Amino acid sequence: MIDYNPKAWFTFIFRIHKADTVRKLFPMFIAIGCYSAVVALLELKVLHLSDIAEWKNIVFVHSVLGFVISLLLVFRTNTAYDRWWEGRRLWGTLVNNSRNLALKLNAMVPASNTASRDFFRIMIPNYAFALKNHLRNKYLPEELEQGPGMEIDEKKHVPNQIAGQIIAHVNDLYRKQQITGEQLIILNDELQAFTDVCGACERIRNTPIPFSYSVFIKKFIFFYVMTLPFGYVFTVGFLIIPIVVFIFYVLASLELIAEEIEDPFGFDANDLPTDTISANIRKHVAEIL
Amino acid sequence: MIDYNPKAWFTFIFRIHKADTVRKLFPMFIAIGCYSAVVALLELKVLHLSDIAEWKNIVFVHSVLGFVISLLLVFRTNTAYDRWWEGRRLWGTLVNNSRNLALKLNAMVPASNTASRDFFRIMIPNYAFALKNHLRNKYLPEELEQGPGMEIDEKKHVPNQIAGQIIAHVNDLYRKQQITGEQLIILNDELQAFTDVCGACERIRNTPIPFSYSVFIKKFIFFYVMTLPFGYVFTVGFLIIPIVVFIFYVLASLELIAEEIEDPFGFDANDLPTDTISANIRKHVAEIL
Amino acid sequence: MIDYNPKAWFTFIFRIHKADTVRKLFPMFIAIGCYSAVVALLELKVLHLSDIAEWKNIVFVHSVLGFVISLLLVFRTNTAYDRWWEGRRLWGTLVNNSRNLALKLNAMVPASNTASRDFFRIMIPNYAFALKNHLRNKYLPEELEQGPGMEIDEKKHVPNQIAGQIIAHVNDLYRKQQITGEQLIILNDELQAFTDVCGACERIRNTPIPFSYSVFIKKFIFFYVMTLPFGYVFTVGFLIIPIVVFIFYVLASLELIAEEIEDPFGFDANDLPTDTISANIRKHVAEIL
Amino acid sequence: MIDYNPKAWFTFIFRIHKADTVRKLFPMFIAIGCYSAVVALLELKVLHLSDIAEWKNIVFVHSVLGFVISLLLVFRTNTAYDRWWEGRRLWGTLVNNSRNLALKLNAMVPASNTASRDFFRIMIPNYAFALKNHLRNKYLPEELEQGPGMEIDEKKHVPNQIAGQIIAHVNDLYRKQQITGEQLIILNDELQAFTDVCGACERIRNTPIPFSYSVFIKKFIFFYVMTLPFGYVFTVGFLIIPIVVFIFYVLASLELIAEEIEDPFGFDANDLPTDTISANIRKHVAEIL
Amino acid sequence: MIDYNPKAWFTFIFRIHKADTVRKLFPMFIAIGCYSAVVALLELKVLHLSDIAEWKNIVFVHSVLGFVISLLLVFRTNTAYDRWWEGRRLWGTLVNNSRNLALKLNAMVPASNTASRDFFRIMIPNYAFALKNHLRNKYLPEELEQGPGMEIDEKKHVPNQIAGQIIAHVNDLYRKQQITGEQLIILNDELQAFTDVCGACERIRNTPIPFSYSVFIKKFIFFYVMTLPFGYVFTVGFLIIPIVVFIFYVLASLELIAEEIEDPFGFDANDLPTDTISANIRKHVAEIL
Repeated sequence: MIDYNPKAWFTFIFRIHKADTVRKLFPMFIAIGCYSAVVALLELKVLHLSDIAEWKNIVFVHSVLGFVISLLLVFRTNTAYDRWWEGRRLWGTLVNNSRNLALKLNAMVPASNTASRDFFRIMIPNYAFALKNHLRNKYLPEELEQGPGMEIDEKKHVPNQIAGQIIAHVNDLYRKQQITGEQLIILNDELQAFTDVCGACERIRNTPIPFSYSVFIKKFIFFYVMTLPFGYVFTVGFLIIPIVVFIFYVLASLELIAEEIEDPFGFDANDLPTDTISANIRKHVAEIL
Repeated sequence: MIDYNPKAWFTFIFRIHKADTVRKLFPMFIAIGCYSAVVALLELKVLHLSDIAEWKNIVFVHSVLGFVISLLLVFRTNTAYDRWWEGRRLWGTLVNNSRNLALKLNAMVPASNTASRDFFRIMIPNYAFALKNHLRNKYLPEELEQGPGMEIDEKKHVPNQIAGQIIAHVNDLYRKQQITGEQLIILNDELQAFTDVCGACERIRNTPIPFSYSVFIKKFIFFYVMTLPFGYVFTVGFLIIPIVVFIFYVLASLELIAEEIEDPFGFDANDLPTDTISANIRKHVAEIL
Repeated sequence: MIDYNPKAWFTFIFRIHKADTVRKLFPMFIAIGCYSAVVALLELKVLHLSDIAEWKNIVFVHSVLGFVISLLLVFRTNTAYDRWWEGRRLWGTLVNNSRNLALKLNAMVPASNTASRDFFRIMIPNYAFALKNHLRNKYLPEELEQGPGMEIDEKKHVPNQIAGQIIAHVNDLYRKQQITGEQLIILNDELQAFTDVCGACERIRNTPIPFSYSVFIKKFIFFYVMTLPFGYVFTVGFLIIPIVVFIFYVLASLELIAEEIEDPFGFDANDLPTDTISANIRKHVAEIL
Repeated sequence: MIDYNPKAWFTFIFRIHKADTVRKLFPMFIAIGCYSAVVALLELKVLHLSDIAEWKNIVFVHSVLGFVISLLLVFRTNTAYDRWWEGRRLWGTLVNNSRNLALKLNAMVPASNTASRDFFRIMIPNYAFALKNHLRNKYLPEELEQGPGMEIDEKKHVPNQIAGQIIAHVNDLYRKQQITGEQLIILNDELQAFTDVCGACERIRNTPIPFSYSVFIKKFIFFYVMTLPFGYVFTVGFLIIPIVVFIFYVLASLELIAEEIEDPFGFDANDLPTDTISANIRKHVAEIL
Repeated sequence: MIDYNPKAWFTFIFRIHKADTVRKLFPMFIAIGCYSAVVALLELKVLHLSDIAEWKNIVFVHSVLGFVISLLLVFRTNTAYDRWWEGRRLWGTLVNNSRNLALKLNAMVPASNTASRDFFRIMIPNYAFALKNHLRNKYLPEELEQGPGMEIDEKKHVPNQIAGQIIAHVNDLYRKQQITGEQLIILNDELQAFTDVCGACERIRNTPIPFSYSVFIKKFIFFYVMTLPFGYVFTVGFLIIPIVVFIFYVLASLELIAEEIEDPFGFDANDLPTDTISANIRKHVAEIL
């Protein structure tokens, strides 16, 4: 995620940021500009269609369908943003549960049992790091702090193994009567939250918007922009070239941004700062336990 | 569900995918194209209505109601997508609960009790498979792993029977004091989640959008498209034929896609990958228990 | 609720279904058609207003406000649909809780205690039937299965009495030590869900959209449609008659459908199939217990 | 809240109800009508601006911004309605919890302990009455039923005191071993719901929509309506007077209704029927305990 | 937050409030006014472009894209408002939990144990104050009431330390058997809510809308407003100057307000009254304990 000051309008408007859609779409701008120029030349200079009113009037299609395309892009934007924001909320839940689990264990586990305290101080943040990399289809053992008896089988589901060891350790403490049954019940919310967050993040990553919508929106934008010059060339002449490019910029940008934030766990410029969040969990848990 | 790379614009725009609405609507395109041609011929060549301003001006109806139709389609799209996404979330919940239940049972059930461990390793994934087929009105015993004492009566509600056996087994362990009362409480969330997920999926499958809306939207699209040529023929001539087809394509596609994703548990191209999810549950539970 | 196949476009478009708004609004269509005809005659043939540009130009009001009316109808449609869908979700919750309660009790209550098992097999579905009729302001004792000691006072809140007997019976089992304290805790979610569902259904039934909106939308539609012919008569002549009728059909239909689904527990064509759901609960609970 | 039959269109359209915005806005209608008349006179008769095309063309501003104003009003309507509906849901939660608490206590408290039963029968409904008046900044001791040992200090937070006494009484029963620890746990949901409902209602009452939006929407409506006659006077002549009044009616009504339902706990015509709900709680709790 | 009477329309419309966007945007108004004047002069007086129809017709771009910009601003407004309202709800949750915790502890902790009662009376409100300042990146020890054994390390996460001490104290009471295991379970909801609220507030503060949207909306508004005079100058002449300023006022205001309320925990005029809420928590907890 890019850290930015939302109130700095000036730099926003004039700087072309690395993640800016202007940069990504630039080749398309040129292609579409040329295309519009060719259409304009053909219609105005070669075919001299301008006196045929029929061609002039097809502009109405674009205003009728302009409405539909806008609403579709709003739908696209909303659903993509909802995933991004749900992903952020899930990582917030992970932060909260890590902290709460540490706070509770700190109050429950006898101060003398340093082995267990060390175990939890190491393993709770490890879950966040393992999940972060799991969502990027990676396994980076160097990011996991080593604890006694921690064995991770890279080929199995890594976060599940860490959660399993934490749950097993808590049940162990219960069996050894270091924590009571009531304390076990109290710890349950946090223990099951780990896997819930993991499953929900996997769901967001694996389920883009239904294929049909994705295809339909792209087809629609394409035909909409490609047919724009046919009619409008007669009303605005060669000014059609920058106009088509600008309209394409607006429509395609919305689709591009939606694609990027739809899966918020990767390395894209707008993705969630899961690295920072994981590091913060490690820091705060260490402060507590 | 179709796996796809949302960033591959080119193939999207030019390939006609199997699930593409273009394919399904093609016969209608031809019918509507012919209809428009007939209307155009009648009005322009036979009746020579073009000099009667009244017919020309009815186009305003289409711009006034174009707004209403767009908003209705947005409503339709949103509600259909919400069901699809809720279905996905429910299956995510099933994944989470299967994992959490396995993780907890692994920590609680004594390692020596291999019979119970085997039972749960078999039955938890069986629930997912049974539910998947139940939502498709099928019963495929070959997909269920056989466990000791598992008896399924095909004529009764199959997922309920599996959930019942899991719940009974857990209570049995409790009665035999292999798990304590507090552990029983902790397992409760996951045990009741099975039936909650099942009921919610049945609700989505059995409850399409209210009949009146479904009828109204279809009637509205039909009349809107059928009356389009009457007025616009005078302004765009025979270009009306591709225009009406294109507008019909846009409006009917949205309704078609909504119909398809509204019930997300079947075999349609956009339906949820419940087969894969069930297989994943079996794999992950086997890793844990 | 009408069971239908959402993919059968043809019958939808051409059949006038019993619940179709076309049927309900038909008398209004004739009245409004006549009104438009009178306005058209007056303005065109009697007063010869057509050359006064001022009257021609008031059409802009309809396009400005057409936007507002569309958004209001969307608001109306969304809130009505949300109630309908919330009602459906509540009955889904009732299904889930009835099943879960039966599954748990089946696992907990000793097989020898057939009296209690009979009691729950009878009373759990009775709650659904009682609630269904309560939401329709009825009391149909013939739909309730009779159990030992079941006494219903028709003048008091019927669902509350059934819930009270179920809760009392469970606490009785606890007092007699047929179920343990931990099992009592586990049953709590389902026991309190009955009353929660009941209260939420009563809320939906008793609280239509705020009066002011209801009045405002109806006033607005009325004035909008009534003033339509004034301006447009000059541009489309007597074609105004079908046009006004069609626009009225669209706007009034949305309001009518919203009114119907807003209270989804009655006997309207689009209402929820609470009879079927109740019968299903009885069937499934009998399978389990 | 006004009880009404949403299907009685006729009375809605022609009766000017007490809460109708027509009534409240009537003085403004006259003022704005006069203003429009003056503008029309000045432009058409005094300054003879009509031949200056520039003034004629500023109407485009109103169509561009008409869109923005509509969307803002939709935002305003949605947020106000959400508060109203959340308020209703909260009172529904209060109803459910009062009933559930009574049902559970009825099953748990020994029949012999009439003192406790009386206490709860009196105090549970008292909470609803106290909250209702608290949300209106009142304290009406005559609405509270008197119970043994009930002492309310008017200067402190009244609902908190009642909730405190209920919670203390339940813990007392526990200490006296009239209810067990597990039963105490089961009662917890309902006991803490009282204060949760109270806090949420206070939040809705104390937090109108952000000041900036409130100011912005009002400023925008004002300038929009005030500048309407400038341009349109040339196209519709003196018909501008009713038109401006009507457009003002539509826009201001939406803002007025939103203001009224935003704080739904007062005495406005559209406010929630908290008096009736409180009385119902008293009635139903008395039936149960 | 500004306390205001939402029904005082007059002062709203004519007073320029301190937080009013008119005040903030005033310099921009002048700059944009000058810019429009220069464009108008150039096109009308210097270049005499007015007879070239092409320039006149580019206005259609603004009406096509006006729709897109409106929908984007609605998206922006909704997401910003959602954060603001979620922030308010979180602080409401903090209020409810503080009260409920005090009410429960009051009923559970023996009246003789004044040390514990004092501890909770001091520490519960301290959490609210610490959180409030933490969200503003401050540490104001003078706002925290001093209790016995309260040691805060300014360099660590302050709210976590206070929550940790509260949780530790409750577990201590449990270990000393001043509260039972069941009572410990009942207190759990409130104890973990502190950290949940804190984490969710941090999430809102640290996560503005994705960078790409923020940039895109600002770029879009800028180009939209800057290109407005090119086409419209020919239709409205020098009236374009106030028109462009007004349209800029509307569009930029929405973005400005959204920026302000997006992070609702600071000192902006529309921010949440966290100071007042914290003081209220202190007052009400003191009344209870």
